[in-house]
Amino acid sequence: MGLEAEPLAAPHPYWPRDLEIGRYVPNDRPTWHSLAFLFSVSAVLLALTWRAAGWRGWTGAPMRPGRRLALCWFAICGFIHGVIEGWFSLYHTDIPGDQSFLSQLWKEYAKGDSRYVIEDNFTVCMETITAWAWGPLSLWTVLAFLQRQPHRYILQLVVSLGQLYGDVLYFYTEYREGFAHSEMWHPLYFWFYFVFMNALWIIIPSILLLDAWRHLSTAQRALDSVKAKRH
Amino acid sequence: MGLEAEPLAAPHPYWPRDLEIGRYVPNDRPTWHSLAFLFSVSAVLLALTWRAAGWRGWTGAPMRPGRRLALCWFAICGFIHGVIEGWFSLYHTDIPGDQSFLSQLWKEYAKGDSRYVIEDNFTVCMETITAWAWGPLSLWTVLAFLQRQPHRYILQLVVSLGQLYGDVLYFYTEYREGFAHSEMWHPLYFWFYFVFMNALWIIIPSILLLDAWRHLSTAQRALDSVKAKRH
Repeated sequence: MGLEAEPLAAPHPYWPRDLEIGRYVPNDRPTWHSLAFLFSVSAVLLALTWRAAGWRGWTGAPMRPGRRLALCWFAICGFIHGVIEGWFSLYHTDIPGDQSFLSQLWKEYAKGDSRYVIEDNFTVCMETITAWAWGPLSLWTVLAFLQRQPHRYILQLVVSLGQLYGDVLYFYTEYREGFAHSEMWHPLYFWFYFVFMNALWIIIPSILLLDAWRHLSTAQRALDSVKAKRH
Repeated sequence: MGLEAEPLAAPHPYWPRDLEIGRYVPNDRPTWHSLAFLFSVSAVLLALTWRAAGWRGWTGAPMRPGRRLALCWFAICGFIHGVIEGWFSLYHTDIPGDQSFLSQLWKEYAKGDSRYVIEDNFTVCMETITAWAWGPLSLWTVLAFLQRQPHRYILQLVVSLGQLYGDVLYFYTEYREGFAHSEMWHPLYFWFYFVFMNALWIIIPSILLLDAWRHLSTAQRALDSVKAKRH
């Protein structure tokens, strides 16, 4: 009946097309479940952090809209790094054959970058550091600004530089492999999942890095001039 | 005569032993040439930077021995990142078959980590960023301290975090590959080249990162308290 010619594993949607993924099981949830989860949790965190940052009881000083938005960004980063990338860090071995909610989210994302279903060594290492270092530090950054802690801009600088370096390596390694792990120019998978979603972590951290630099320079300049007067 | 059974490429000293390196040519310089170059240039830079940092003409303020040593460190980093790793970034494709001085240095180092003679993707990307970002920024850090620029500790933080993150990824990726690219426990290649030489870029940047954090926090705390008094 020709059945013996069938491949053992289910056919997969990943690139390159001849990629071997042993235990692959196709998602049984529609794509919009993953996208709705990501964007609705992010929206709720944005709303909550925006309100929290507007409450004057923290320090008495009002926070400007740009600063409030930056705190929303770090709250969302805390969620994405800690929960979504944390899941990948822990379960990257099982994801291709697993049907739990976050594994299905990663199987969907991997259509834009199949390194997430083949346990690519660099990807696992970078994601693990992102999840366990930049995740908690993002939440600490939110808290540090709410409480006006003296190291708030240092945390902003550390998290932003960490995200930026990780993401530059992420794009650079894939560029050197000729974007082989994605269907090039696909509007959703290549442009939205792979390019746009990751470009956010190049653009926003770059802005926040310069912002932290400006604030910390100002503080150091003020302290230097006080000390110079004393001498 | 049995000559036709000889392998085409010269036998190489790298691990894993079955690694295929097409155009490998063994070094014709002894090992001590590479080591002497690395350590003597570093020693000269250390001596010059130590003297430069001791000159009071820069800012009038004397620099403490710890700070002077830190500047020596950044000068040496500027040389190692910019020149030695810069060479790897530019010529990683040719190194296995090349006999120029720095290529021989890399062929020697690769006995402790063969990723440097097989154009390992992560290694090339990380080294390129190290050479072109952390290299020039290391030299800028030296200058920023000599001229007491207000962003001197920010530069120290940025370079140190960049070095630390790159090096953590360097060890972590190799750990996940079971240290396959080195002869495990070899005193010179594994312990000195691979472990010790790279551990320096974990330990020293960690110390300098905390030092920069302390100084920048102090500056921000001082500025915050001035502003709080004004209100």
